[in-house]
Amino acid sequence: MSTQPSRELETFPNPQPERDYTIRMRIPEFTCLCPKTGQPDFATIHLEYVPDRDCVELKSLKLYIWSFRDQGAFHEQVTHDMLSDLVAATKPRFMRVTGEFYVRGGIDTTVIAEHRAPGWTPPQPVVLP
Amino acid sequence: MSTQPSRELETFPNPQPERDYTIRMRIPEFTCLCPKTGQPDFATIHLEYVPDRDCVELKSLKLYIWSFRDQGAFHEQVTHDMLSDLVAATKPRFMRVTGEFYVRGGIDTTVIAEHRAPGWTPPQPVVLP
Amino acid sequence: MSTQPSRELETFPNPQPERDYTIRMRIPEFTCLCPKTGQPDFATIHLEYVPDRDCVELKSLKLYIWSFRDQGAFHEQVTHDMLSDLVAATKPRFMRVTGEFYVRGGIDTTVIAEHRAPGWTPPQPVVLP
Amino acid sequence: MSTQPSRELETFPNPQPERDYTIRMRIPEFTCLCPKTGQPDFATIHLEYVPDRDCVELKSLKLYIWSFRDQGAFHEQVTHDMLSDLVAATKPRFMRVTGEFYVRGGIDTTVIAEHRAPGWTPPQPVVLP
Amino acid sequence: MSTQPSRELETFPNPQPERDYTIRMRIPEFTCLCPKTGQPDFATIHLEYVPDRDCVELKSLKLYIWSFRDQGAFHEQVTHDMLSDLVAATKPRFMRVTGEFYVRGGIDTTVIAEHRAPGWTPPQPVVLP
Amino acid sequence: MSTQPSRELETFPNPQPERDYTIRMRIPEFTCLCPKTGQPDFATIHLEYVPDRDCVELKSLKLYIWSFRDQGAFHEQVTHDMLSDLVAATKPRFMRVTGEFYVRGGIDTTVIAEHRAPGWTPPQPVVLP
Amino acid sequence: MSTQPSRELETFPNPQPERDYTIRMRIPEFTCLCPKTGQPDFATIHLEYVPDRDCVELKSLKLYIWSFRDQGAFHEQVTHDMLSDLVAATKPRFMRVTGEFYVRGGIDTTVIAEHRAPGWTPPQPVVLP
Amino acid sequence: MSTQPSRELETFPNPQPERDYTIRMRIPEFTCLCPKTGQPDFATIHLEYVPDRDCVELKSLKLYIWSFRDQGAFHEQVTHDMLSDLVAATKPRFMRVTGEFYVRGGIDTTVIAEHRAPGWTPPQPVVLP
Amino acid sequence: MSTQPSRELETFPNPQPERDYTIRMRIPEFTCLCPKTGQPDFATIHLEYVPDRDCVELKSLKLYIWSFRDQGAFHEQVTHDMLSDLVAATKPRFMRVTGEFYVRGGIDTTVIAEHRAPGWTPPQPVVLP
Amino acid sequence: MSTQPSRELETFPNPQPERDYTIRMRIPEFTCLCPKTGQPDFATIHLEYVPDRDCVELKSLKLYIWSFRDQGAFHEQVTHDMLSDLVAATKPRFMRVTGEFYVRGGIDTTVIAEHRAPGWTPPQPVVLP
Ligand SMILES: [Ca+2]
Ligand SMILES: [Ca+2]
Ligand SMILES: [Ca+2]
Ligand SMILES: [Ca+2]
Ligand SMILES: [Ca+2]
Ligand SMILES: [Ca+2]
Ligand SMILES: [Ca+2]
Ligand SMILES: [Ca+2]
Ligand SMILES: [Ca+2]
Ligand SMILES: [Ca+2]
Ligand SMILES: [Ca+2]
Ligand SMILES: [Ca+2]
Ligand SMILES: [Ca+2]
Ligand SMILES: [Ca+2]
Ligand SMILES: [Ca+2]
Ligand SMILES: [Ca+2]
Repeated sequence: MSTQPSRELETFPNPQPERDYTIRMRIPEFTCLCPKTGQPDFATIHLEYVPDRDCVELKSLKLYIWSFRDQGAFHEQVTHDMLSDLVAATKPRFMRVTGEFYVRGGIDTTVIAEHRAPGWTPPQPVVLP
Repeated sequence: MSTQPSRELETFPNPQPERDYTIRMRIPEFTCLCPKTGQPDFATIHLEYVPDRDCVELKSLKLYIWSFRDQGAFHEQVTHDMLSDLVAATKPRFMRVTGEFYVRGGIDTTVIAEHRAPGWTPPQPVVLP
Repeated sequence: MSTQPSRELETFPNPQPERDYTIRMRIPEFTCLCPKTGQPDFATIHLEYVPDRDCVELKSLKLYIWSFRDQGAFHEQVTHDMLSDLVAATKPRFMRVTGEFYVRGGIDTTVIAEHRAPGWTPPQPVVLP
Repeated sequence: MSTQPSRELETFPNPQPERDYTIRMRIPEFTCLCPKTGQPDFATIHLEYVPDRDCVELKSLKLYIWSFRDQGAFHEQVTHDMLSDLVAATKPRFMRVTGEFYVRGGIDTTVIAEHRAPGWTPPQPVVLP
Repeated sequence: MSTQPSRELETFPNPQPERDYTIRMRIPEFTCLCPKTGQPDFATIHLEYVPDRDCVELKSLKLYIWSFRDQGAFHEQVTHDMLSDLVAATKPRFMRVTGEFYVRGGIDTTVIAEHRAPGWTPPQPVVLP
Repeated sequence: MSTQPSRELETFPNPQPERDYTIRMRIPEFTCLCPKTGQPDFATIHLEYVPDRDCVELKSLKLYIWSFRDQGAFHEQVTHDMLSDLVAATKPRFMRVTGEFYVRGGIDTTVIAEHRAPGWTPPQPVVLP
Repeated sequence: MSTQPSRELETFPNPQPERDYTIRMRIPEFTCLCPKTGQPDFATIHLEYVPDRDCVELKSLKLYIWSFRDQGAFHEQVTHDMLSDLVAATKPRFMRVTGEFYVRGGIDTTVIAEHRAPGWTPPQPVVLP
Repeated sequence: MSTQPSRELETFPNPQPERDYTIRMRIPEFTCLCPKTGQPDFATIHLEYVPDRDCVELKSLKLYIWSFRDQGAFHEQVTHDMLSDLVAATKPRFMRVTGEFYVRGGIDTTVIAEHRAPGWTPPQPVVLP
Repeated sequence: MSTQPSRELETFPNPQPERDYTIRMRIPEFTCLCPKTGQPDFATIHLEYVPDRDCVELKSLKLYIWSFRDQGAFHEQVTHDMLSDLVAATKPRFMRVTGEFYVRGGIDTTVIAEHRAPGWTPPQPVVLP
Repeated sequence: MSTQPSRELETFPNPQPERDYTIRMRIPEFTCLCPKTGQPDFATIHLEYVPDRDCVELKSLKLYIWSFRDQGAFHEQVTHDMLSDLVAATKPRFMRVTGEFYVRGGIDTTVIAEHRAPGWTPPQPVVLP
């Protein structure tokens, strides 16, 4: 596996495909460039998903996140792009990407996008007291 | 685009209109005047919405917030006014405006107002454990 | 308007009666007397409501809270009394009063009471991810 | 009323029996003995209930909690015992007892038990935004 | 009972099998080895369950957790393995295992897996205001 | 001892007069009246002292604090008055009174006053790493 | 006293001029305009002082803070200006003004300035363990 | 070693007597009885010391703390007693005992006592930026 | 002024050179590349200084920070380089640069470097109680 | 460099030996075995030092920390051992090692040890307001 920024997302087989379960990843080291001004933007990205056959490999996810470093990207668009790439790579039952972007002009912005596989029904949550 | 306070809200096309997704903005720098006493009031405004065709442009939102600086406005009314203006500008599927106003007379006040587009049904939330 | 403690609650017309929306007030400066021992009790009161025709005026609410200062009042009873008075004054669609009382004998106590107007149905909450 | 540890729980008449409402008590000063080793255990107990005809009197609750000081009690059992005694004394519409026990062997344990009166239906919660 | 690491989970009889209730355990002292690199991984494990006939004995749980110290284990796999072992030992009505793993490559990962006994219906949660 | 508000401060003999040591008391339940407007003010009072022959008795301190409830008192003056009364009652080697008053007009105020007995030299503090 | 913004700072006589003591005020509602761009700046101002003959009157301090609302002011300059005005009004033994300005361009800035009266020596602090 | 409450404090030889260094222990599970009322008191005890020849053995410290469970003890006295016992057992260069007692009558109390060996000079603290 | 990354630091004249005072800037958006591996590093930089004739201009500081984005830099070296550049540009009486770098290999690192102008004596701090 | 646990600490030349400056490292992933019981202990280690000619290399520090995983070690001894090894490897002007060990028997323990090079005088700290 390379140690260069890369849009190629590696996967590995879901070790427990017979169960719906949750994987959450917190990625506080995201940066890209504002396509209007060329200035750096910073964000924390949250990834949550229910895997189907494949899980995202941690190191390739790191290289993928790195690949945005020199790319221009609007807040809303880049959140959807990450979701699309991650869905294409892992074909999950459910996936949610949250981008928490730093303050600009006194306003901070969070964008949250979800993908649900056709035909997948989320399990009824068990809420214990 | 001007750098003067302005009630004109700019928008840009929603980059992913085929999906219901969430945009949240936190605006801690809101101030207006109490219409009774003329004294300054301060608040943090939270904006949450599901865009339809248009998204609020960040810089124009900042100028819009600025436009309340010299205006008299009651807590309840100004929250509804912001919601109305933001709904008129972006025609969202759903929008919520929350105004958290600073302590007055030992009491702090929060006002929360929502708009839902006719015919729009909120997606069943996916609650992962 | 007086600046004396007063059980008279002033109201003003709801500026947006066509919408169900939320008003929250946090009142950390409540004190009354224990009817058994005569000793002071302290609490933080939370008021949440969906107004119908009338909203609680902030300054009169402060004078109302002040009026309990010299009155004997049990935790459970005083929470219900505040709810009854506030419902009588504003006839809200929904109202909740929460009294968080300070530690007594190593135990702290919270009492929460609600009123719902006959025939009012709470709106289905919109839970955004 | 005694000031000795006591299993006798005093009650007083619910001042508002026509309403379902919530009473919460936080009791950080619970201690008992481990029945296996005889060593002291410490916990914070949370009591939440919807009273019917009777409410728990605060001072007798304190004496009741005190009565466990010299008694051997397993985490799971003592939580159920407190629930049983409190249900027997007050016959509430609903009651929940939570025991948060301190770290033992690098593990901390919480036990939560509930009682619901036959035929009682919890009110549909009003979730305000 | 041994004081050696052990995969044998001891149980004791549920003292209140007639009730659905919750037991939560927080275990901040989990460590295993990465099967790829052999390097140590650290995690906090959360266990939540509704017991049926048997409860997990605290000391044997500690020895069980210890048994992973020298074993290679992927994040996703080890979470499922713990769930499988704990389900096999206690046959609970419901069980959830959460593994919160420390930062690797700037990313932290949480895995959450659940087991529900066939035919068991979670009680409708009582949500008090 | 009375259970009425009282300016009489009870003391008990310092059990360790041969040592300089510290006693701190945090009193979050202070309230008095503004002498200008008659309206209630609220504060948390901190008392720190090095006793000489006498220590402040806890229950009489509570009754003393209670005695300000119906008295008009400016922030700065009342802090000095408490210091003077406590010094007169206990003749400490050192005493500090801190009054943290709640927000008024968007400003919160803290007043800190100290007394040092003539000839008393504070011990050189031992600062451990 | 006016209820208009005003640079006139009112004072009242120090009730305890024979003692060095501390008064602290936290003022989270400061706003002015950037002299370069005309855009609003926001800050929290902290005032700490040892009064000599005069103390700052709370309401006039509020009107003074208000007077910056429409004035252009650099961060460093406005902090010094407030210090100069407050020193001129009260001639304190010691005064410190801290301006904590909100994030601009991803950077937040704090400016702290002090005045010490000629000949005044700060008391040796008494550090209790 | 016994597993009964015990006033006997075990020690072990300081492994590094040639150096002044710090040992801190936090003991949140202290309880004793009020000698006036017989009711339980609860505290967190902090122990900090610079050992000379001997260190406090952890398990015996636990049994020592346990030995106060059934003993009447005033806040100030019990803090000094623990200091005296710990000094007698370990003859440290320096020792500080802090007792943080829970709220009683709306007031919480902390007592801090120190012992310094004759002729021992605390090292000048190295304060790194 | 450019909006490109730039090592040129702009300054403006200190508005109050007759006083020693403090300016603090927190810069959470620093990123550079590891010179060994080429991978991105992230840090929060803190700048504290006592200006002499010149202050750092905020926007040019932002462009300066940006200039490290594509540069290889070790933690210790880059902290000293920033200090050197900022000292060269502003010739302050005192300056401290703190680099708080994100976790690598389970370890997080902070580097703090200071510059003091020859002959400058820091003012004796005034520590108010 | 190996990726096996190793007591060999690598160093690199201090890039700024002409200055006294601070390096801090936080290492939350320390584990060793209790020499008495053989059971795992966990700690967070803090390292702070003023380098002279050599700095600790981050990756070798990680392997060094790893080398304690299977070793029996008392809290006090292991803290001194780490200090001795790190001093031997880097010969710093000043070094402090802090071991924060997890709760055992309801008590948590912190050990702090320091080394100061003969003849090295810590710089007078510059305390900015
Ligand atoms: Ca955010
Ligand atoms: Ca709120
Ligand atoms: Ca609020
Ligand atoms: Ca409470
Ligand atoms: Ca717990
Ligand atoms: Ca818990
Ligand atoms: Ca995590
Ligand atoms: Ca987590
Ligand atoms: Ca305050
Ligand atoms: Ca304060
Ligand atoms: Ca700041
Ligand atoms: Ca305390
Ligand atoms: Ca304390
Ligand atoms: Ca750090
Ligand atoms: Ca740090
Ligand atoms: Ca600790």
